Amino acid sequence: MKKRNHEYVHGYSTREEERLVDQATTLTELLHSDTKYPAGCSVLEAGCGVGAQTVTLLKNSPEAHFTSIDLSQESLDAAKAKVQTAGYKNVSFQLADIFDLPFPDESYDHVFVCFILEHLKRPADALIHLKSKLKKGGTITVIEGDHGSTYFHPDSREARQTVQCLIDVQAKMGGDSLIGRQLFPLLTGVGFVNVSVSPRMVYVDSSKPEFVEGFTKNTFIAMVEGVREQAIGSGLITEEAWQRGIEDLYRTTGPHGTFCYTFFKAIAYT
Amino acid sequence: MKKRNHEYVHGYSTREEERLVDQATTLTELLHSDTKYPAGCSVLEAGCGVGAQTVTLLKNSPEAHFTSIDLSQESLDAAKAKVQTAGYKNVSFQLADIFDLPFPDESYDHVFVCFILEHLKRPADALIHLKSKLKKGGTITVIEGDHGSTYFHPDSREARQTVQCLIDVQAKMGGDSLIGRQLFPLLTGVGFVNVSVSPRMVYVDSSKPEFVEGFTKNTFIAMVEGVREQAIGSGLITEEAWQRGIEDLYRTTGPHGTFCYTFFKAIAYT
Repeated sequence: MKKRNHEYVHGYSTREEERLVDQATTLTELLHSDTKYPAGCSVLEAGCGVGAQTVTLLKNSPEAHFTSIDLSQESLDAAKAKVQTAGYKNVSFQLADIFDLPFPDESYDHVFVCFILEHLKRPADALIHLKSKLKKGGTITVIEGDHGSTYFHPDSREARQTVQCLIDVQAKMGGDSLIGRQLFPLLTGVGFVNVSVSPRMVYVDSSKPEFVEGFTKNTFIAMVEGVREQAIGSGLITEEAWQRGIEDLYRTTGPHGTFCYTFFKAIAYT
Repeated sequence: MKKRNHEYVHGYSTREEERLVDQATTLTELLHSDTKYPAGCSVLEAGCGVGAQTVTLLKNSPEAHFTSIDLSQESLDAAKAKVQTAGYKNVSFQLADIFDLPFPDESYDHVFVCFILEHLKRPADALIHLKSKLKKGGTITVIEGDHGSTYFHPDSREARQTVQCLIDVQAKMGGDSLIGRQLFPLLTGVGFVNVSVSPRMVYVDSSKPEFVEGFTKNTFIAMVEGVREQAIGSGLITEEAWQRGIEDLYRTTGPHGTFCYTFFKAIAYT
């Protein structure tokens, strides 16, 4: 459930599915290792997509019961297949919309949302819908990136322009990719309490080749390259500047380059 | 020893000294808690300034012997007074220049440098000088900020402009305040090995009032405000945009604001 109307900024291609899996593998420890739900509790995963995070959730909380929903039947089928291959059984999948949830109020102990709010026109409304399904004292866990947290060495005006294109294209589609820094006001604003936000910064240099490949190249640059047509087509950037910018992004993956990006993880209570 | 020619971007005022102490107090745990030198070893603190970090070093490594140098006798006197008040004795102070160190080669076990390289025209040369004083197998610890790592909510063009003024003024004085992200290539480039860089991100929201006051207001915004005259005087920004930018920076310290900045800490071996 990346976007209500199926216009998902990153598309639904096979490369995109590989990107999501690369992203999930490299970042699993950083983003998910501290999410463990107790035995017997019920967790709603809102927007499971192709199941990139679902398998990690099921593995880390083998005795919790998950309901994973998404807007796309194709994504749900991919998620189901992934979970089946991994051998987990503590989840049921359901085609459903965050803004029209087919569950009774106060029916879940916990809600988990990852990389969803950034794609929504009304993220605060989505949180209100999700909050209504939480029991009193229940928690919501939200993980989002923030594309404006990106910087690198060597610095480059054109490379920064390509990142700005990603931000602008996502904004044109109604999303907000600067959402990570806004989790605290978003969650407090809709009435969650004890909101605690922790940044999860990814710092990459050539001493960490698995992050150079798995994050900088196969997650971040792949994501930027995914909006090439829209960025050039809508006149946000010239083809020459784009080409130069992408080359400069790849330069940050060399022996003397560094790359920084920050995810934000929030936990809040009803 | 903030700058060779005593043209220190942040000035030498009393407010600046208070800013440095606020900064050191709020960030001590984040930046310094993992720096502990063993009994009997010798440590060169290059550029101790008014001793903001010196007291923490002495406290965390009470049985190591420190030599703390600086280019400014006035700063050294302030550092001495601070150490005396705190009751530490394991340090000797010396007026000295990083580029003309009055010590035999290979005479120190460790070197510690904090918030210095960003002010130097030739940071790599400074590292070469410091490296020559390290025994074989010795370590250097470098801590620097990166003003380009700054972002906040609510976002504001004018606020970003004021931060860019700080970066530009520092660059005009020969420094480079985007140095944090460059520690890995700088250290590997002059022959240090096993270089390990860890980012230390400061994330501030209204649930952390001590960071709102101690970091966002009294450290970061105070630092930006310190270059007001230079920024407006040299035409980098209009007075109106400056005023608006500073107001917008203060807005990030409100109940719905957030603020992000990242320091980088590197440890490397000869």
